[in-house]
Amino acid sequence: MTAPPHEARPTGPGRALPDTQQGMRRRNLARVMHAVHADGPLSRAGIASRIGLTRAAVSTLVDELIRTGLLEELGPERPGRVGRPGSALAVSGRGPVGIGAEVGVDHLAVCAVDLRGDVRARAERHVANRGRSPGPVVEELTGLVRQVVAEAEGEGLWPAGLAVAVPGLVARDARTVVRAPNLGWQDVDLGALLPGEFPLTVDNEANFGGLAELWLGADTPANFLHVSAEIGIGAALVVDGSLLRGTRGFAGELGHVPVHPDGPECGCGGRGCLEQYAGEEAVLRSAGLEPGEDRVGLLAGRAADGDPEVRRALREAGTALGIALTGALNLLDPQSVVLGGALAGLAPWLLPSLEAELSRRTAGPACPVSVSRLGPEGPLLGAAHSVVRAVLDDPAAVAERA
Amino acid sequence: MTAPPHEARPTGPGRALPDTQQGMRRRNLARVMHAVHADGPLSRAGIASRIGLTRAAVSTLVDELIRTGLLEELGPERPGRVGRPGSALAVSGRGPVGIGAEVGVDHLAVCAVDLRGDVRARAERHVANRGRSPGPVVEELTGLVRQVVAEAEGEGLWPAGLAVAVPGLVARDARTVVRAPNLGWQDVDLGALLPGEFPLTVDNEANFGGLAELWLGADTPANFLHVSAEIGIGAALVVDGSLLRGTRGFAGELGHVPVHPDGPECGCGGRGCLEQYAGEEAVLRSAGLEPGEDRVGLLAGRAADGDPEVRRALREAGTALGIALTGALNLLDPQSVVLGGALAGLAPWLLPSLEAELSRRTAGPACPVSVSRLGPEGPLLGAAHSVVRAVLDDPAAVAERA
Repeated sequence: MTAPPHEARPTGPGRALPDTQQGMRRRNLARVMHAVHADGPLSRAGIASRIGLTRAAVSTLVDELIRTGLLEELGPERPGRVGRPGSALAVSGRGPVGIGAEVGVDHLAVCAVDLRGDVRARAERHVANRGRSPGPVVEELTGLVRQVVAEAEGEGLWPAGLAVAVPGLVARDARTVVRAPNLGWQDVDLGALLPGEFPLTVDNEANFGGLAELWLGADTPANFLHVSAEIGIGAALVVDGSLLRGTRGFAGELGHVPVHPDGPECGCGGRGCLEQYAGEEAVLRSAGLEPGEDRVGLLAGRAADGDPEVRRALREAGTALGIALTGALNLLDPQSVVLGGALAGLAPWLLPSLEAELSRRTAGPACPVSVSRLGPEGPLLGAAHSVVRAVLDDPAAVAERA
Repeated sequence: MTAPPHEARPTGPGRALPDTQQGMRRRNLARVMHAVHADGPLSRAGIASRIGLTRAAVSTLVDELIRTGLLEELGPERPGRVGRPGSALAVSGRGPVGIGAEVGVDHLAVCAVDLRGDVRARAERHVANRGRSPGPVVEELTGLVRQVVAEAEGEGLWPAGLAVAVPGLVARDARTVVRAPNLGWQDVDLGALLPGEFPLTVDNEANFGGLAELWLGADTPANFLHVSAEIGIGAALVVDGSLLRGTRGFAGELGHVPVHPDGPECGCGGRGCLEQYAGEEAVLRSAGLEPGEDRVGLLAGRAADGDPEVRRALREAGTALGIALTGALNLLDPQSVVLGGALAGLAPWLLPSLEAELSRRTAGPACPVSVSRLGPEGPLLGAAHSVVRAVLDDPAAVAERA
């Protein structure tokens, strides 16, 4: 695939600045980290051949990354060979960790993920956060963060940053929750409430779920639509391996795509939005059930038991998802759709009608729909891994902070 | 606006390669060209301060750009001043031109645009291309291209490339028209039919229209949705100043977003698509008129005369556009919507119901909708300017070809 010439302009962070030796060094440190992260353990020569730099240049970069604790030497490699033995290098399992946190409607969770991608500490608490004011929720979350950080520090790790997933719209400043209707929050600056000692990123749970799918999913393509639901329905639009965020940071509001334009009123001000047909509470209502705490568990259990009303409600939700996704696929032309979050657990009963609707409405082969293996863990893991990715993407910045 | 750390990774063409001196030189040549293009005439010192390089480095780059005919020296600047006079530099008006071409349902058009953005030659022919096979259409277009190139060469200009706008889906190879239902074309490789002496780019007319708006529009933001119509309805999604193309190059098919999911059948295989309510032929049908050649002129004329049936049909089309755009705005969160192409001429009668629908369906301030000043000229100008942009983005590549 050749990009047309009018897209040849270099883009992305740093591209507006003139190229400098210092900038080259930072980017080359990132290339070394990414090579070892993806294919390690690797020798210096192995890294050099992968990223197209000389062995001497790579040695200097590697020395710096060992000094700052991001890479570690595993000792001589193949000592029986003739010549100076190369030493294998691996991403450190004792350096920085990313702290991920999640504020859910019914729970709080925190975890620490190291540069190798292993979860090294985790804490979770079931708690009804609906209608609870931000102060006490964040205080409780901070307690869990401190517990997880202490556990990680006990293993010789140190926190490189904190990323928090929330069920709502987050401003482009990556700290202000503009609207989280299912918590009842509006314009909450989490940066002012959370401990200030780590670099902080706040993002929508659907976005972190989509990033988790990109980084941890099986053969996830670089262009896909990740659809997830808790009470609302959100999508993460991943385009060429990056999230499409929108002007205000509000992109991906699949739940408010009109499905039946004259349908029931929606909290967003519209009518007949997808959320009115396929949101957890809409499905429960349609099946004649009371929305309680374990909404997905209830629906999945009844559907598995063959409850005809629940199965019909889920079938209709799948059809509504198919109509809204037809619009999204026509607009975005992704390579696949991934159902994540709560939708992953309901997929057996949603997918048949969803896929039928998609293939009915599109000429040619319909876009494949798959189910996330991460399911409800996606947002929390995506948050923690976003911090890890930031370390891999700019190791020099972390070394300055360390 | 701070990008969250997980997007700090450098992206874009060339970012996967290690930084080299050669790559730095190419990018710095582009920075010089863009600075002079945006703010020229400029002295060497003026360029240096704008792009953050030393005056000596800029002089070397400028010398190369003068040698290859992309910049020209306007002569000594402020000769009364003490010290060596700086000479003002401008983008050359005698160097390369971009050749833009358009295959419309009812016309063919070609133009040549120089590096300064001036149209230096133009040719157009009214011709009914519907159902005509690609060979003769491209032969006729090639005749117009040769005429425009000859005229440009007579003025000392030389063609840097050819870009062709078509009313259909174009593959990511930027030469194959996969489907152009209103021409009746399918899987046509324009690269094999057009003259091979220039670098070629083929793209959807809506995409070139959107790019024209980005480059030539008044205060166009970097995130917007450009909606245009001929017989079909297409959108260009511009995200952070770049087109969102989709996996196959088919993104932006706003015309096939379902508006009333149980509505009339559409050629795409779906039902109730936007095109069935707001496409030119749908509006003519709804108003009880025969689709002839100057469809937009007919509708605009009757609407201006106060024809109640035409006004009602356009009002309903505006409502349908509002429903489909509500979905697109929820998914993409652009900063504005621009109506271009044929829609620009019908805007007075579409906009009131369109805007009413948007504000009815969205809480908070509705996304502003504006009308393109380029109108039906957008795709042709966008095509020609895409070649000019490619020269500014990589002047070294053009110098190699010159």
